[in-house]
Amino acid sequence: MTHFCLPGIHATPCLQLQALRCWSHAPHIHSQGKPFGHRGELQQAKRIVVKLGSAVVTRGDECGLALGRLASIIEQVAVLQNQGREMMIVTSGAVAFGKQRLRHEILLSQSVRQALHSGQNKLKDMSVPVLEARACAAAGQSGLMALYEAMFSQYSTCTAQILVTNLDFYDEQKRHNLNSTLQELLRMNIVPIINTNDAVVPPPEPNIDLQGVNVISIKDNDSLAARLAVEMKADLLIALSDVEGLYDSPPGAGDAKLIDIFYPGDQQSITFGTKSRVGIGGMEAKVKAALWALQGGTSVVIANGTNPKVTGHVITDIVEGKKVGTFFSEVKPAGPTVEHQTEVARNGGRSLASLLPAQRGEIICLLADLLTEKKDQILAANKMDMDQAVRRLSRPLLKRLSLSLAKLNSLAVGLRQIAVASQRSVGRVLRHTRVAHDLELEQITVPIGVLLVIFESRPDCLPQVSALAIASGNGLLLKGGKEAANTNAILHQLTQEALSIHGVKDAVQLVSTREEVEDLCRLDKMIDLIIPRGSSQLVRDIQRAARSIPVLGHSEGICHIYVDAQASIDKVVKIGENPVDIASLECGRLQGCGSEQYSVCPVRDSKCDYPAACNAMETLLVHKDLLRSPLFDQIVDMLRVEGVKVHAGPRFASHLTFSPSEAKSLRTEYSDLECCIEVVDGLQEAIDHIHKYGSSHTDVIITENEETAEQFLKQVDSACVFWNASSRFADGYRFGLGAEVGISTARIHARGPVGLEGLLTTKWVLRGNGNAVADFSEQGGMEYLHQSVPVEQPLPEQRTSN
Amino acid sequence: MTHFCLPGIHATPCLQLQALRCWSHAPHIHSQGKPFGHRGELQQAKRIVVKLGSAVVTRGDECGLALGRLASIIEQVAVLQNQGREMMIVTSGAVAFGKQRLRHEILLSQSVRQALHSGQNKLKDMSVPVLEARACAAAGQSGLMALYEAMFSQYSTCTAQILVTNLDFYDEQKRHNLNSTLQELLRMNIVPIINTNDAVVPPPEPNIDLQGVNVISIKDNDSLAARLAVEMKADLLIALSDVEGLYDSPPGAGDAKLIDIFYPGDQQSITFGTKSRVGIGGMEAKVKAALWALQGGTSVVIANGTNPKVTGHVITDIVEGKKVGTFFSEVKPAGPTVEHQTEVARNGGRSLASLLPAQRGEIICLLADLLTEKKDQILAANKMDMDQAVRRLSRPLLKRLSLSLAKLNSLAVGLRQIAVASQRSVGRVLRHTRVAHDLELEQITVPIGVLLVIFESRPDCLPQVSALAIASGNGLLLKGGKEAANTNAILHQLTQEALSIHGVKDAVQLVSTREEVEDLCRLDKMIDLIIPRGSSQLVRDIQRAARSIPVLGHSEGICHIYVDAQASIDKVVKIGENPVDIASLECGRLQGCGSEQYSVCPVRDSKCDYPAACNAMETLLVHKDLLRSPLFDQIVDMLRVEGVKVHAGPRFASHLTFSPSEAKSLRTEYSDLECCIEVVDGLQEAIDHIHKYGSSHTDVIITENEETAEQFLKQVDSACVFWNASSRFADGYRFGLGAEVGISTARIHARGPVGLEGLLTTKWVLRGNGNAVADFSEQGGMEYLHQSVPVEQPLPEQRTSN
Repeated sequence: MTHFCLPGIHATPCLQLQALRCWSHAPHIHSQGKPFGHRGELQQAKRIVVKLGSAVVTRGDECGLALGRLASIIEQVAVLQNQGREMMIVTSGAVAFGKQRLRHEILLSQSVRQALHSGQNKLKDMSVPVLEARACAAAGQSGLMALYEAMFSQYSTCTAQILVTNLDFYDEQKRHNLNSTLQELLRMNIVPIINTNDAVVPPPEPNIDLQGVNVISIKDNDSLAARLAVEMKADLLIALSDVEGLYDSPPGAGDAKLIDIFYPGDQQSITFGTKSRVGIGGMEAKVKAALWALQGGTSVVIANGTNPKVTGHVITDIVEGKKVGTFFSEVKPAGPTVEHQTEVARNGGRSLASLLPAQRGEIICLLADLLTEKKDQILAANKMDMDQAVRRLSRPLLKRLSLSLAKLNSLAVGLRQIAVASQRSVGRVLRHTRVAHDLELEQITVPIGVLLVIFESRPDCLPQVSALAIASGNGLLLKGGKEAANTNAILHQLTQEALSIHGVKDAVQLVSTREEVEDLCRLDKMIDLIIPRGSSQLVRDIQRAARSIPVLGHSEGICHIYVDAQASIDKVVKIGENPVDIASLECGRLQGCGSEQYSVCPVRDSKCDYPAACNAMETLLVHKDLLRSPLFDQIVDMLRVEGVKVHAGPRFASHLTFSPSEAKSLRTEYSDLECCIEVVDGLQEAIDHIHKYGSSHTDVIITENEETAEQFLKQVDSACVFWNASSRFADGYRFGLGAEVGISTARIHARGPVGLEGLLTTKWVLRGNGNAVADFSEQGGMEYLHQSVPVEQPLPEQRTSN
Repeated sequence: MTHFCLPGIHATPCLQLQALRCWSHAPHIHSQGKPFGHRGELQQAKRIVVKLGSAVVTRGDECGLALGRLASIIEQVAVLQNQGREMMIVTSGAVAFGKQRLRHEILLSQSVRQALHSGQNKLKDMSVPVLEARACAAAGQSGLMALYEAMFSQYSTCTAQILVTNLDFYDEQKRHNLNSTLQELLRMNIVPIINTNDAVVPPPEPNIDLQGVNVISIKDNDSLAARLAVEMKADLLIALSDVEGLYDSPPGAGDAKLIDIFYPGDQQSITFGTKSRVGIGGMEAKVKAALWALQGGTSVVIANGTNPKVTGHVITDIVEGKKVGTFFSEVKPAGPTVEHQTEVARNGGRSLASLLPAQRGEIICLLADLLTEKKDQILAANKMDMDQAVRRLSRPLLKRLSLSLAKLNSLAVGLRQIAVASQRSVGRVLRHTRVAHDLELEQITVPIGVLLVIFESRPDCLPQVSALAIASGNGLLLKGGKEAANTNAILHQLTQEALSIHGVKDAVQLVSTREEVEDLCRLDKMIDLIIPRGSSQLVRDIQRAARSIPVLGHSEGICHIYVDAQASIDKVVKIGENPVDIASLECGRLQGCGSEQYSVCPVRDSKCDYPAACNAMETLLVHKDLLRSPLFDQIVDMLRVEGVKVHAGPRFASHLTFSPSEAKSLRTEYSDLECCIEVVDGLQEAIDHIHKYGSSHTDVIITENEETAEQFLKQVDSACVFWNASSRFADGYRFGLGAEVGISTARIHARGPVGLEGLLTTKWVLRGNGNAVADFSEQGGMEYLHQSVPVEQPLPEQRTSN
């Protein structure tokens, strides 16, 4: 069933056809003749063999084909082929296809015979006969290939069928023939589909695993695929079966861990389990075949082709270098794996947490010292990064990337503040209860565990975040942007130098492997909290990627200012030398305040101080009574002077003859010198608007009426609610929390600006004298006291103002 | 291409074939002749029309077929057919299939001609001609049907092809013919595949949307499917296209909400947007067709058949009654939707939170009163539930379900305790900072928002959880087991009665619609915290289902007791009248303690007090020096007497000549009178074991050595760490927290036993006088004070011991 387009005219038309395809994404595809060193290089694989185990091709239940899965695989193969790669498929499935077909035919002929001859209903006696697998294979082969062809034709991809037996590889002449046939097919951009010639191989061995059907002893499609891959000098062999990959011990044994990258030298560390349920050749055989291929110069990935969640993209994911299945590599990378780093960080963090607070403080102070002592080294490393980045990054990003002596000095000052704060972080008793005589309960602060901090460009994040982790006794995994690689490396080295003085060097780890952020976010059960530091896009991406790890942060900051009817003009707009409370004169309701000391007003400050900040105002809500007042005119005038582009909410627009551009949505974070103005009837409508369109970040009321203000503060359900103050105060430093971890809009754990406390959790410590709860039952005769014992007052963390 | 098995012998063989199928899951399948009232009834649909829009059948890119999607759809249709349902497919796709085919052929012949005649490489001039859609349809029809047939044959399902035009329905005779043909096919268990006869319909209208290809004006496959469904008296029409369903406003407009159930009367509330990109007939046409079918007696669901995440099961999910797409119903259910209830609960919760603490306390006390006052009503309702459950539920479950006067009284007592605790929950100032002169910052406790509490059988959960929510000012959504429906209804009614005295009746909502727990867990952005109260299986299921809503609780409790070498015998095993410290005599190292007051020891208590509890001991770690000591013999003897089945850890087993059954895994939660014993070298190994195999719930050390104990308490990274006390003390009530919300093993937010505080978060309130951050910049000249102002000491919640 070889699909030559027009016999006799060579393959030119086919080639021309192929030339018409869009060779879309073909990043540096070439054969290199030796296995790739890491997953990232798999993108370059030109010639790829995809081996589909019988478990992948067939359904679990009745051995029919798993069509959806097959179709998805074919789509991926076609996509890769259309990128200019040379794809080959080694497939099982003919037996399953044939079984389905023969069963149908046999039942049919049986029932026809019954219907014609007996007249009796003997259906109950009819049973599916045991089908001989070789016959099934013969019957199924043509149908299977027809299906492959029909499916591939949907992607304008031609296929060719090759039937081989393992023996074909031993006969030199046959091998040569096979080789040149395949080469010719690949040259013509045809996808060869290789199957074992099941109909002619030796008699089948019974295999009870496959639900009663005798299956041809294909003994080792894996080794066939490996041989073929090496023979054809393929760059990559993807072997798909029904296991995720190679585990370090038999899966199901509880502790089995999937091995990401396997080196030939690691073979001793593996314990193989029993063979997989469907298909012949357990994991041991697969590994053997994989190592054989690797030695022959072909990279190998063993992965699961049956998991519906993964199947969608398992082949293209592998080729894109994603962490799927087990990658076989000859080169053992120098650095540790990120899983290992996480474990090391957890243990290091535990050691760190068991130090005295003063020791943790010492480490942080030493790090502060090192920042200034080793300034030359740091700045030199930073210059290397800057030199490389100067052509690639925009000016604002370059500014973030660059370090200066001044930056280092102020970093050191900040670190010393954290050192002070660290004295009262871990091990603080929050609650002390005398549960009973001789039974004392304490709730104490402890570190959360292992933090993953992902930060972009700014290398100054590294010492800052490290100091926070050290102060709170947490293990830390740092993932910085690669544009700052050199600076991050030296800063991390200094951090470990500081940690070394108390033997806890490993508590802070810098991830320098090629791990994608996405892969790190999947390390649940290893990482306890993720803290993204960077753009809101970064936060959003991480929130999406991290499924079962909590992410501290916020992706949106839609902050409101509500200017009440009883607002004082000097709290709203900038006032001049001689502030005149025009609004109060005109409206007759406003109370003058005349606090001339404020040269900058909250509204202006909220929008214009730093428009890109998350705590900048996005929507200004104005009481309807103010609409035609001079106060409102002044607001609009101020915004105009400051260059703020105004969008009108629908209600505001309806009040105007000539409206500014209408806001596309009332839920917009402009993050620029832009804002929306909307009109509300009063307090309740303002609150409703904020609840409907806000992001529960920071919302402000400007009013002189205390009762109105308190209602607002009480009812608005946001992390920060302010009265007569700029929204820009929503910040850990300004709140006096010392170092800021970030601002959270989550409703559990920390909320709003998060200080060191956000990196802590608690544990309950109970000290008894052999107590049992049964003693406190009715029969036990003991009684709970539950006396509260006073504890130290938890003060806000110390900081020196600067 | 009608697939009759053997022409001339009627259909008997086919029918017999079908009879051999296992008619597995066929719950009450029957035609009822009128639309179903709610989604749950869709399981009964016997005759189902599945309409596949062109967007479903074709790929987005080049108009080839989306094979994976199609295969999955066919699998689902086959599964339903094999359940004994009568499935019909209305499909698009012939044009796409044909286009792919014709393009291939045309290019081929062009290139052949070039190769033969010109000799020049004019490939660049070759372009894909604009294909006439009717020709494409004609060319594609046979291939499409062959594909359908090949795919369906994998499920032993026969298909038949029917080509119709809309006109066929207007001609009485044609309609009758079509009807009887289809009836006959369905009678023979054949799946009819209906397509419009595109080759003979009027000339195509250009449709620029479909990427330049002229598509046959199938004007309205939707109405064709609707007509067919009504004509054939189908129970259900599933119309799949590339939109999720019907939205209340055009999707993309920001606020558009997917409508779960649509009633004909709701039509006014919908705004239709522009037509969908691919395919003819926008949403308005779909809705028109759906309403037409509904009027004709067929239920309709419009859903997305292209979303890869959903496609896997969209058809079977719909038939199983899951919340997919938009369900068209004639009957408007009496109750509100769960989305509406959540909104009402949020608003109700906000009102509740703005009450005075005393008012919330009054509500809870009134509820306590009502529980005893209305006891007759409650017990009568409970009897109804019990009578219905008595045959279906096991004895322990029945015991949980039943209420008694004693239970109601103790419930009332508990509620009054919560009322006391509620006085100091919401609005407590945790931190007060004078940020600057005239700028005061407070961090105060506030409710989390809306809680969803899911509980099994126990109806006493309802008032308890309601009281906790009221005390903490949270909105509450309750989902109880249906076995307690009557009891829950009356208890909820009383709760609302109590809430009414302060006008916040709506704060507690009982979900009585048929919503699955799974659907509730998907209401993110509407629900802030889920609290499951029930089996660990329930917790696990909910943790899996709730993607972006935090779940408070734990799914595992693998608690350890480490018996140190310096343990005192009376703290380990039960002691008799005259305790003799045998171990200390024999080992010469143990210190006697002789606290005769303890009749029950921690080890026995931890395992035997309530073995199914999450805080029961699962693994006993024994110091190796104790192995051959009388102390160890006594432990084993005690376990034997108590009937505890012992499993041996690998190291323990290696010490024994005759070992008990080896533990399958050291990470087992037996939840029964079973435990694992393992031997460790000392403290550090015990700690490592706990970190490796534990679940960070509760871990205990038994020792007389204070230093060892403190090391254990410090290093073990669990929510609860105990010294010489039973693990069973890990409990909110025993900790003196008053009411217990649950036990959390999470590392953020609450950890360990969670009291009312776990239902609270904080908000930051800043009161200023027109302040701006710019004033505090170098130019501004103002300075932060960050003075800490003392706040009230946060005492443990009050409770009376009982």
